[in-house]
Amino acid sequence: MHDISLSRARLPATLEIEVLDEFGEAKQQAIAAERALTIYLNKREIVTLMTLGADPEALVVGYLRNQGLLADRRDLQVVHVDWEVEAAAVVTRHLPEDLEERLGQRTVTTGCGQGTVFGRLLEATSLRPLPATVLRQSVLYQLLDNLGAYNETYRSAGAVHGCALCRQEAVLDFVEDVGRHNAVDTLAGRQWLLASESADADIFYTTGRLTSEMVLKVAQMGIGVLVSRSGVTQKGVELAERFGVLLIARAKGRHFQAIHGMGRLELDAVPARRPGDRVRA
Amino acid sequence: MHDISLSRARLPATLEIEVLDEFGEAKQQAIAAERALTIYLNKREIVTLMTLGADPEALVVGYLRNQGLLADRRDLQVVHVDWEVEAAAVVTRHLPEDLEERLGQRTVTTGCGQGTVFGRLLEATSLRPLPATVLRQSVLYQLLDNLGAYNETYRSAGAVHGCALCRQEAVLDFVEDVGRHNAVDTLAGRQWLLASESADADIFYTTGRLTSEMVLKVAQMGIGVLVSRSGVTQKGVELAERFGVLLIARAKGRHFQAIHGMGRLELDAVPARRPGDRVRA
Repeated sequence: MHDISLSRARLPATLEIEVLDEFGEAKQQAIAAERALTIYLNKREIVTLMTLGADPEALVVGYLRNQGLLADRRDLQVVHVDWEVEAAAVVTRHLPEDLEERLGQRTVTTGCGQGTVFGRLLEATSLRPLPATVLRQSVLYQLLDNLGAYNETYRSAGAVHGCALCRQEAVLDFVEDVGRHNAVDTLAGRQWLLASESADADIFYTTGRLTSEMVLKVAQMGIGVLVSRSGVTQKGVELAERFGVLLIARAKGRHFQAIHGMGRLELDAVPARRPGDRVRA
Repeated sequence: MHDISLSRARLPATLEIEVLDEFGEAKQQAIAAERALTIYLNKREIVTLMTLGADPEALVVGYLRNQGLLADRRDLQVVHVDWEVEAAAVVTRHLPEDLEERLGQRTVTTGCGQGTVFGRLLEATSLRPLPATVLRQSVLYQLLDNLGAYNETYRSAGAVHGCALCRQEAVLDFVEDVGRHNAVDTLAGRQWLLASESADADIFYTTGRLTSEMVLKVAQMGIGVLVSRSGVTQKGVELAERFGVLLIARAKGRHFQAIHGMGRLELDAVPARRPGDRVRA
C-alpha cells in the first residue's frame, strides 16, 4: 500500500479507575476503552463504530472490506482517523454501484462491537471454495498454548474479545477489541494495509461466540478452520455447513467440541482419561 | 394492551446437535437458536435482528421502544410475527416525525445481539432523573443467589446473555437471548405488552458487559442500579456517571466491584477474609 495516505491514530486500550470491592476497600482497576468512530467513505457517512481504538485505520479498512464496500485494496487512497472529531475519512477510487441499496439494508447481528451487516452479506452467494485444511489435535493444543501469551487487555480489563489469525500452531496476528467483530475486521484491515504474513493464515481463533456473521466473515477471509473458546449458535453451524468450515467450539485447555468438518480433524493427541475425569459440556 | 392485535410466535430456544469431543466420542450438545427477524414499522423496513426467537413480539416492541421509534404503548395497534417469512409487522398510530433522520444515523455499538443504535440515542439528553435506590450488600448477595435459578439456556447451550429486572432481591423477570441487547429490549417490551410487575423494578442485572448502550438502555427504563457479572467499558462508566447510575461490575458469588454511585451501597455483609483469600480482579 505504498501509495495510500494513512494516519496512525493510536490510543491506549485501557485506563485505570478506582473501584470499591466487597470488602469496602478502594482499589485501582483497569477497564477497556470504548470510543466512537464514525466512518466516512468518499465523504458519505457510513456508520459509527464503538471501539477500543488501538488500531483504528485497520479497523475501518477491515470493516469496509468485510462489508463489501471496498472490493480491492488498490482502490484505497486515504485512511485518516482523527480522534478529536471521532471520525475516519476513507477515500477510494471505486464505490460499489449498489452502495445505496447495501446501506439501506441493515441486519443487526449478534456481533459484539460490530452488530451490523449491510446489504445481503449473510446470503454470501459469491464465496470462493475454502481450503480443506487438516487440523491435528496436537497442533490445536499447541496453538491454544501459544495463544495464552496474548489477550493482554482482557487479562487486565476484561470486557474485550480477542481474535487471531494463525498458521497451524503459529499465531500470525492477534487483535483485541470491545467487540469480536472489530477484532476480526481489524485483522482483515491489517492484511490489506500491512500486507502482513497473516494473509497465509489457515486457522482463525476467537474468544467470542461463533454466530452467523463470525462464520461468514472468516469464510470471506478464505480460512477453513474456525476455533472458538466459546459456544456456537444455530446459524453459525448452518453457515459452517454451507461453507465447509471445520468448526471447533469450547476450545480451552484440552477440551473442545468439533461441530462440523470432523473429517479434517486428526485425533493424534487424545488425552488420557484420569479417574473421575469429566468432559466439560 | 387489551386493544392490540398480538401474535404469539414462540420457537424453542435451543436445539440438539451431535459433536465430537477431545476423546473422539460423539455426544449430543444443545446449542442456542439464532434466527433472523426483520421488523416492519407501518410497512417501513426498520432492521433485521438475530434472535433466539423465544419471545419475538416483546423483543420487537422493546427494540422499537428503546430506539425511540415507539413513544407510547397506547399507539401500538398490531404486533404480528411470522417465522415463515422471518418478519414482524408492527402498526402504530404515530411515528416519530424525525423517523427518516433517526434511521439515517447508525451507531454500531458493542451490543451482543443488537449492535445498532439509531439516531442520536447515545446523546440521551431527555432522560428523566433516576431514583436514588439504595442497595444493601446483603440484598445484592441474596439477589445473586436467586438469579442462580435462571439462565437455563446458557447452562444447556451457552452462547447467550441473560438480563433480569429485579426489585431488591426479587427477580421480577428474566430473559435470555443470543445478545444481551435483545434480552434487555425483550424485558422492555414485556413491560409494555404484559404491563408486568417488572415495571416496579429498581435493579437491572445482566450477565453481559456494561458498555455505553447497555447503561443507556437501563437508564431509559428508569432504573438506578445496574449489576453485571462481567466487566465495564470506559463509555459505560461515563454514562453511569452522567445518569447517576449505581454501577456494579464483576458481581459473582461474593465478589463485586462498585464502579460508580458507591454512596448508595450499604456494606452490611462484608465477607470474612479467609487466610490466603484473594479479591478477584
